[in-house]
Amino acid sequence: MAPRDTISRRAFLEEIGKIAGCGTTYAAMCSLGLLAVPGGACALPQGLGPVGRGVSVGIVGAGLAGLVTAHELGKLGYACTLLEASGRAGGRCLTLRGGDQVVEQGGVQHVRWHREDHLYANMGPARIPHHHKTLLGYCKSFGVPMEVFVNENRAAFVHGTRAFAGRPVENRQVVHATRGAISELLAKAVNRQALDDVLSAEDKERLLVMLKGYGELGRDHAYQAASRAGYSVTPGAGMVEGVLRERATLQDLLKAEFTQSNLSFTEEWNQAATMLQPVGGMDKIVQAFVRQVGERITYHAPVEKIEKTGDRARIVYRDEGVSRVLEVDHAVVTLPFPALQRIETGFSAAHQAAMKSCHYTQAAKIAFQAERRFWEEDQQIYGGISWTDTDIGQLWYPSGALMHDKGIVIGAYIRNDAVGTRYAAMGFAERLDAAMACGELIHPGYRREVQHGVSVCWPRMPYAEGGWAVWSTDARKTHYPVLTRPDGPLHLAGDQISHLPGWQEGSILSAQAVVADIARHTAAQRPA
Amino acid sequence: MAPRDTISRRAFLEEIGKIAGCGTTYAAMCSLGLLAVPGGACALPQGLGPVGRGVSVGIVGAGLAGLVTAHELGKLGYACTLLEASGRAGGRCLTLRGGDQVVEQGGVQHVRWHREDHLYANMGPARIPHHHKTLLGYCKSFGVPMEVFVNENRAAFVHGTRAFAGRPVENRQVVHATRGAISELLAKAVNRQALDDVLSAEDKERLLVMLKGYGELGRDHAYQAASRAGYSVTPGAGMVEGVLRERATLQDLLKAEFTQSNLSFTEEWNQAATMLQPVGGMDKIVQAFVRQVGERITYHAPVEKIEKTGDRARIVYRDEGVSRVLEVDHAVVTLPFPALQRIETGFSAAHQAAMKSCHYTQAAKIAFQAERRFWEEDQQIYGGISWTDTDIGQLWYPSGALMHDKGIVIGAYIRNDAVGTRYAAMGFAERLDAAMACGELIHPGYRREVQHGVSVCWPRMPYAEGGWAVWSTDARKTHYPVLTRPDGPLHLAGDQISHLPGWQEGSILSAQAVVADIARHTAAQRPA
Repeated sequence: MAPRDTISRRAFLEEIGKIAGCGTTYAAMCSLGLLAVPGGACALPQGLGPVGRGVSVGIVGAGLAGLVTAHELGKLGYACTLLEASGRAGGRCLTLRGGDQVVEQGGVQHVRWHREDHLYANMGPARIPHHHKTLLGYCKSFGVPMEVFVNENRAAFVHGTRAFAGRPVENRQVVHATRGAISELLAKAVNRQALDDVLSAEDKERLLVMLKGYGELGRDHAYQAASRAGYSVTPGAGMVEGVLRERATLQDLLKAEFTQSNLSFTEEWNQAATMLQPVGGMDKIVQAFVRQVGERITYHAPVEKIEKTGDRARIVYRDEGVSRVLEVDHAVVTLPFPALQRIETGFSAAHQAAMKSCHYTQAAKIAFQAERRFWEEDQQIYGGISWTDTDIGQLWYPSGALMHDKGIVIGAYIRNDAVGTRYAAMGFAERLDAAMACGELIHPGYRREVQHGVSVCWPRMPYAEGGWAVWSTDARKTHYPVLTRPDGPLHLAGDQISHLPGWQEGSILSAQAVVADIARHTAAQRPA
Repeated sequence: MAPRDTISRRAFLEEIGKIAGCGTTYAAMCSLGLLAVPGGACALPQGLGPVGRGVSVGIVGAGLAGLVTAHELGKLGYACTLLEASGRAGGRCLTLRGGDQVVEQGGVQHVRWHREDHLYANMGPARIPHHHKTLLGYCKSFGVPMEVFVNENRAAFVHGTRAFAGRPVENRQVVHATRGAISELLAKAVNRQALDDVLSAEDKERLLVMLKGYGELGRDHAYQAASRAGYSVTPGAGMVEGVLRERATLQDLLKAEFTQSNLSFTEEWNQAATMLQPVGGMDKIVQAFVRQVGERITYHAPVEKIEKTGDRARIVYRDEGVSRVLEVDHAVVTLPFPALQRIETGFSAAHQAAMKSCHYTQAAKIAFQAERRFWEEDQQIYGGISWTDTDIGQLWYPSGALMHDKGIVIGAYIRNDAVGTRYAAMGFAERLDAAMACGELIHPGYRREVQHGVSVCWPRMPYAEGGWAVWSTDARKTHYPVLTRPDGPLHLAGDQISHLPGWQEGSILSAQAVVADIARHTAAQRPA
């Protein structure tokens, strides 16, 4: 159905009746296929026409939630104004390139990388699970080119200061020694009749076959050296049969922090293959939205106050040093809570308490340029992540522009709050130095290979002041629900108002839920 | 060192002394870094100059082994002639595109796909492991653009006619139910003290922590529904928490063919992440070599006889209907054995017996064009492979050009000899029909989605007559070694003369080994 300028009240109400709120009905309708979809994703009804004509909406924050809200409301005819405190859209979706500046509370860093399309770093969201249909639907409809993001790489390293004598070992060694050890032990238990009450004779026979394959076990179901864990001399031509590596011991595995916590990371619901990324940087998605709604954005417009004035909202913001007022029918507030809580708002006490109950990570990332893709040339690592129990936590290799001359590595992805807080307190040079010391333990010579480090400590980034929301089970139950409902003319959107905190999909779905709420409200207000 | 026209005998002998044969010395020198490398790969010494000047080499077959032999010998000044029976280089490295013809024994198929860069199918080799350094080194030095090949995708399907009531299930369901079941059973055995003689108290404690994470176990180490296996309602915004899927049972898993044989496929040494592919088709690598040595290739020149004439070789071939003779100092023969055995050759009885002892797979692939990337749009499958125990064995989704409008799927990758033999005996339409019937079980509606199928049954492809070499343990021990040594002026190259049969890396390494053999021979012949 093509957009139209007029719509009968009855048709409108019928259509709007199909729009559910942000509760379970919405999901139920999505799964029943009642809501139309861009590229297969759950979204709002199409072809409804300009039902929002004459209704004004002020959107605080031009991150992904704000952009999607403006885009979807705009399609319905609402008059949107997007207020963005900084000079750029995207919020925590921040891609750095040579020439950029990183402004944090207390200082500025200049990005000194070469200016080439593939030399970028996604300092916020950096990967997209294949089932994040709404985000991917927008990417497809906007024509944002996508490529595979390598999340798991058997050639990348695992480094634990307390395991393997502190030496980095290849991911495949740990993964396959684990499978081997588990399979050998279970086969032993099965053969000792220790599980005869839960396994039939046929189960046992088939289970032993499965375990032999699963663990690459040898004779008598023993876990010895096996090819999946790699070779010290790789098989080649002629008489070069290859020499298998020695397998790691169970005790080494159990000592390794990695096996206790991160061994299954890339098997999690939001981390499992296939993972995707936009070619050339995550902000290609932001740019695509800005092409849609850019004229609605006022940059450098930090908001100072958000009030309820009867049924309407009043937003006070600064614009070129002057205090301005925006009076609107609805306000959609997308700021992360740590930043939002600095602003005077008219949210209810229950809303305020709920925001306080939500924890934000102290996440940080540090990126370096390398003149030479030493990880590819020396270790055949193409994308993926090395894990370590040192400060940096992870070391990411680029998934795109393989075999090019230079590359950007994420030299730290700090998800541990204590480490993140410590790094946020360091000077810029000190952070880089500390990160390089950790990288050196994984790649000897690292310090000579990488240059021009840049750090983004999210707790110190203005208008974010944190990484992403973490809801405790308790807070999720007690406090969270109130935030999913409008507080009169005030609405909250963002990944924090979702069960996908820290994910762009969460931001987008929460924005769509707010759009549905506002459209429903409009329908209820409309005269007969 | 730059190439030079003259070289002292002493310098030459010193340099040539560094070139080892195709035995273990070669590998040892590679690993010691004594041999120079393109892009980090093991290869021949650089800067040796034209040491092969005045020495002629005839190369039979312009597949990858022949091309590499010509390229490397050419750099050393040898006069190479490449005889190719067909009208194209690449051999089994065959990429099909719209407008191509597939000529097999007994018929011709015309490829009717749209002509767009991403609409291709690699009917022979289709993936490159990250550690195939020599191949990747050439790709880097020739500037062949590479991208990630998705070998493992948790969203792709597993289909077993005898498991899960014959319904396709997502890969993640099988993988994680397996991990859950194994972990639960082992935890039970540990808690029953069934393994106390092999595990210390501390081991047990840490192992239980590991198992809980590995299997995503719940309370009391029980394997229940878990998020890694997926959701029936995915987590979203607002109050949409998500609803977990029911987990597969251990008995369903044990019945599934996949878990008995293919569950660990993508963990094998040559299959584990990161896997790579050239952007736009595997034959981009062939084209790069042809740019180097194309003028040395005579196409449509099937060889009829390869003889020893004293120390030299005599190759009889046809050229435009005329029988011609090529007399050379060395002949390098790269044909797969089934094709080679049709030719009269002067190889020793031991060589002939060895060739006969080598089995070739009856592999086949079938590719279809789809007007719509239904696997992406409907199932969020981006690249990867669905597995089935029906004829087609595997169904491959493209890893490149994600979210484009059309795509080519590999609708059958038949590795089972009995099935391959059966398909080779079918007519073209019958093959496609049979493959579509299997695809329909994985993707209902498949028949309507795919068109213009093309089959390549390798046993029926001229000058190949088989998929790839399979050496039995016995034949590898008894017969194989003689093939790695020259038979006077006759040399064998190809993946079959390697411990990487069926892999391009094996072809390339075997070609480099022959180049080293020939250069060593030249050194020994040179007058004082």
